[in-house]
Parts: sequence; C-alpha cells; structure tokens
Amino acid sequence: VRDQYHEDLDAITTSLVEITRLAGSAINRATQALLDADLTAAESVITGDEAIDELYAQTERDAFDLLARQQPVASDLRVVIASLRMVADVERMGDLALHIAKVARRRYPASAIPPELQSTVLEMGQVAQRICAKCSSVIAGRDVTMAAELERDDDVMDGLHRRLFSTLLDDSWTGGIETAIDVTLCGRYYERFCDHAVSVARRVIFLVTGELAQSSAESAL
Amino acid sequence: VRDQYHEDLDAITTSLVEITRLAGSAINRATQALLDADLTAAESVITGDEAIDELYAQTERDAFDLLARQQPVASDLRVVIASLRMVADVERMGDLALHIAKVARRRYPASAIPPELQSTVLEMGQVAQRICAKCSSVIAGRDVTMAAELERDDDVMDGLHRRLFSTLLDDSWTGGIETAIDVTLCGRYYERFCDHAVSVARRVIFLVTGELAQSSAESAL
Repeated sequence: VRDQYHEDLDAITTSLVEITRLAGSAINRATQALLDADLTAAESVITGDEAIDELYAQTERDAFDLLARQQPVASDLRVVIASLRMVADVERMGDLALHIAKVARRRYPASAIPPELQSTVLEMGQVAQRICAKCSSVIAGRDVTMAAELERDDDVMDGLHRRLFSTLLDDSWTGGIETAIDVTLCGRYYERFCDHAVSVARRVIFLVTGELAQSSAESAL
Repeated sequence: VRDQYHEDLDAITTSLVEITRLAGSAINRATQALLDADLTAAESVITGDEAIDELYAQTERDAFDLLARQQPVASDLRVVIASLRMVADVERMGDLALHIAKVARRRYPASAIPPELQSTVLEMGQVAQRICAKCSSVIAGRDVTMAAELERDDDVMDGLHRRLFSTLLDDSWTGGIETAIDVTLCGRYYERFCDHAVSVARRVIFLVTGELAQSSAESAL
C-alpha cells in the first residue's frame, strides 16, 4: 500500500507539471495570435483549453481519491491540499490565455494591439512564458531558488503593465476607445496569469521551507 | 469525538457564511465609493480586506486541522475539500471589491464613473450584492433553488457588462481614455466577483445533488 501511495502522490505532481506546460504553450500561442493576428494560433488556444480543463478535473479527482483511500497525514496531507489549490491556479492560467486568444480572434484580421504597443505586449508574453516555465521547474524540482527568480520576473511584468497604461494615457496617443479596452483587458489577463504562477511558486516554497507566503500575490496596481 | 467532529464541520460552514457576508458588505461599500467618490467608504473597504484575509487563513487552517485529526471520508471529505475551494473564491471576491475601492480612491475627489454610466454601474453593484447575499444563503441552507436564481442574476450581470462596453464604444461617447480604462477594469471586477459567487453556488449544488457543475463559471464575453 505504501508504494502505491507514493506513486499516487508522484502522479499528482506529474499532472501538475504537465498542466503547467500546457498553460505555458497556451500563453505562447495566445501572444502570437494577438500580435500577428494569427487566427490559427488563436483557435488552437481556444480548442486546446479543453485539454487543460480535463487534466484539471482528472488531477482533482486523483487528489480526492488519494485523500479518501490513503488518508495521508502531516506533510503528505499538506502536499495534496496544496496540489488541489495549485492545479486550480494553473487551470485559471489556461483560461486567461484563452481570453487573450479570444481578443485576438475578435479583432481578426486586424491585430488588437497597435504598432506602438506591440513591443511591450511581446515582452509581456515572453515574461509570462518564462514565469510559466519556471513555475513548472519549481513544481517538479521543489526549486526554491527558481521560485525567488519567478518573483522578480513578476516585478518585471508589473513594470510592463504600468508601461502599457502610460502609453495609453500619453497625450500623444491617438488610438481609439476599442483599442484601449482591448489593451486594458489583455494587460490584466497577462498580469493575472503571472499572479497565479507566483501563487503556485509560493505554495511550493511553503511546502519546502514552512515559511508562510504572503496572502495575496496580486500587485496593488 | 464524533460530536466534536460535527461541531468542527459546522464551524467551517459558519466561517464560510461569515466571510461571504464580509465580501457582500465590501462590494456594497466599494460601489458607494465608486459612484459617490466617497473616500471614507473606499478606505473602509481597503482596510477591511485584512479581516477577510484573516478569516480566510483561519478557515483554511481549521479545514486542514479537521482533515488531519478526524480524517473524514466520503461525503464529509467532499464537504471539507469543497469548503477549501469555496473560501478561496470568497476571499477573491473580497480582493475584487478592494480593487474597485482602489479605483474610487485613485480618482477622488472625482468619481471614476461618468454620469452616463452611473446607473449601469449602480445596477452592477446591486446585482453583485444580491448575488453575494444569495450565495450566503446557499452555503448556510444548502438551498439549491436559490443557487439556480443566482445563476440567472449572473446573466443579468453579463448583460450589464455588455451594456457598459456598448456605451463606451458608442460614437456619441465623448469620455477619455482614462475613464475608459477605469470603467473597463471595474466592469471586469464586478463580473469576476459574480463568477466566483456562481462557482461557490455550483459547488454547493454538487455537494447536495451530486450533479456536476460546469467547469468554468466565467462568461465568454
């Protein structure tokens, strides 16, 4: 029984790593869809979200079954409970990539992002992808050093998010209301994507070190 | 032991009802702050979020302790796991009310919401408060009928959200980019507030009826 139990625990971590990989792939393609008005990329994110939802539901069921059958205690119980929370965070990251893809699809064949904001949004996409990849490594290897790096990447994201607003609010900006709405929403989606990754990383740090994470990963924009 | 166990289970539900009441009060005051440029109301939401965070952390700890000490199985295990998820949803509702209050504070002494949008935002605030109150009753009384009502209220919220964008995008609208950004963000916060309440209600329905909720409460705007 004991061996089966550890296999089940490991399987949950494996699922978590896999769903995080899927979310990273989704945000990558969503950024491409948004910047290049790439409808194929947008559609692939939109249809691909189902796989993320299924893996999420499966991981929830696995964690629940493990709790019900094996009744883990102490640190193992903590790992399973944290995993339930983490998989919900990552599922949400998939939803946020999906929202970005939908903005791209709505504006096709135009790009929702005007030329003067393309480089900032490109950077946001790159940071989001980097944060997601690090999040995967943090989960797989319980890598506390990389978890700290991820926090710094999130500060970069917050800076890019502020830059987005500065550009929109600059007197010289001549874009319209529709573009301002699209950019505001996409900026928010990228920021929340990274907040959820930070939240996952903090839960791993807590599991490893026992040090409490801050209650909210969200920046006070 | 069995009596203590049911007391502990009930205590978690009581905490859930209480944190939902706090979130309802927060969204009510946040709406007032936003529409009336009421700085006192804004500050009370901002400082009051700490109480929501504390109750959230306490409820998480209580649920964890119950799992560790009593090792519930079957439907009781399901209730505790669902409660962990629900309390996270409600904590997030508090954060969203906080964000609205921060928008109000940022624009003080002006109102972030221009006259032509005040009635729509007022309605959004009222619907959010109603949904939150029903959410409380759903948790306290496992009231499946009210859970269904809450879903319909959420459709009303989605309609109001669309109306907000229609107004912003109307050719006759003369507001500026800053207002469009504020309105876009606040609209999103209200919508997400209600999505989380719907998510909580669906979890309660699942606990009562065993019927699976949809995977995502979020409208495809």
